[in-house]
Amino acid sequence: MFSFAQAREQLGESFDPLPVPPLPATDPDLDRVVAELRRLRDASAALANSEVELGDIADRLGEVAGLLESRVPSPEKRLENLWKGYGTRRSNPVAGPENPIAPPVDFVGCDDGSVMATLTLGPAYQGPPGCVHGGISALIIDHMMGLANHWAGRYGMTAHYELDYCSPTPLLVPLTFRCWVHETEGRKTWTHATIHAGDRLCVEARGLFLEASVPVPGRPDVKWNKGDAT
Amino acid sequence: MFSFAQAREQLGESFDPLPVPPLPATDPDLDRVVAELRRLRDASAALANSEVELGDIADRLGEVAGLLESRVPSPEKRLENLWKGYGTRRSNPVAGPENPIAPPVDFVGCDDGSVMATLTLGPAYQGPPGCVHGGISALIIDHMMGLANHWAGRYGMTAHYELDYCSPTPLLVPLTFRCWVHETEGRKTWTHATIHAGDRLCVEARGLFLEASVPVPGRPDVKWNKGDAT
Repeated sequence: MFSFAQAREQLGESFDPLPVPPLPATDPDLDRVVAELRRLRDASAALANSEVELGDIADRLGEVAGLLESRVPSPEKRLENLWKGYGTRRSNPVAGPENPIAPPVDFVGCDDGSVMATLTLGPAYQGPPGCVHGGISALIIDHMMGLANHWAGRYGMTAHYELDYCSPTPLLVPLTFRCWVHETEGRKTWTHATIHAGDRLCVEARGLFLEASVPVPGRPDVKWNKGDAT
Repeated sequence: MFSFAQAREQLGESFDPLPVPPLPATDPDLDRVVAELRRLRDASAALANSEVELGDIADRLGEVAGLLESRVPSPEKRLENLWKGYGTRRSNPVAGPENPIAPPVDFVGCDDGSVMATLTLGPAYQGPPGCVHGGISALIIDHMMGLANHWAGRYGMTAHYELDYCSPTPLLVPLTFRCWVHETEGRKTWTHATIHAGDRLCVEARGLFLEASVPVPGRPDVKWNKGDAT
């Protein structure tokens, strides 16, 4: 399994930016289902007043939904099943290949210790007209901070998180997300992040992360304390 | 069209909590498409290691995606079309009936000036095991603050936003979101919010909103300055 700490060790002090590789698919058909749901999400976004005929699309999706629902276990059971595999890393709502909400974001580890992503967001992520929803920026950065902590060999859950929205963050334009550990002390990690559109600073953020653990569904013997990137 | 200010005026000083009514559907088939995509999203979430057979589901979704993609205009054109109607309120990623990412959240205006929502989140919104992703809490609260500002007759875009994560926010348990304007001064509005699971405080948040305007796609005559709830 990919480990940030191992990768950094192998690469030594100087190396090229390193894409964070996806974990292998547990079920390639699940990844295909999610990829198709993303196509449908992106195509259906902002279709009001477009005069596109959608009646047959809704009917066909309804049939597939009925078929799928008849097969799946309860949400509780599914959360337990997840821990037979890689846990939440493949299913998270920012980068997970098993989650149709995720744009997804592909991260790269850089040799200055930062984690980076380049990403263009479409209408499904809109807040103000033509702009990324401020809460979507907050969602992506929070997740990215967890990864940057791992890249620096740190773990923890978000304790405090703050953002300054410096200028509007545009849709349909490549955005650069950057994130790095700023300071550490005992159980605490302070992590910073930015979003730029070209040279323009859109968002600045700071997070405080604390080492902590939460129980794992259906696994009373295991405590999860690794953050999302394990 | 529903207006917070008008509703409050009509109701006078004392009234029962008032559900924020959805705007009428521009295209009921679009709402149906999105409702079916949500069923598919919730059913497919966390299916790794479940032994559910998904090959035929992926194939069928791929066919529908191809059919839909062949009909839709470019994202830029769709963003313009949106402004022939209600703008972003029906399509936002938190409450919009036209957005398959949105849980959705249904808001209620309360007579103490706060806005409230009760919401149970499933596996698609997971961060730590069995818990809501911290960034998802941030997304929902940021959006809700915009609504609370409207409820108080204020407008603005998020300038600064901070959250304290006091305890883990559970999945599959009803959560109570509360949000209210704390203070106002000229162009500035300070808004507070909390998330509780039962009596337990999970998240506390504070936002600073500034009156501002952004251009509307394809409408050089219009400046948008009303926040998302108009």
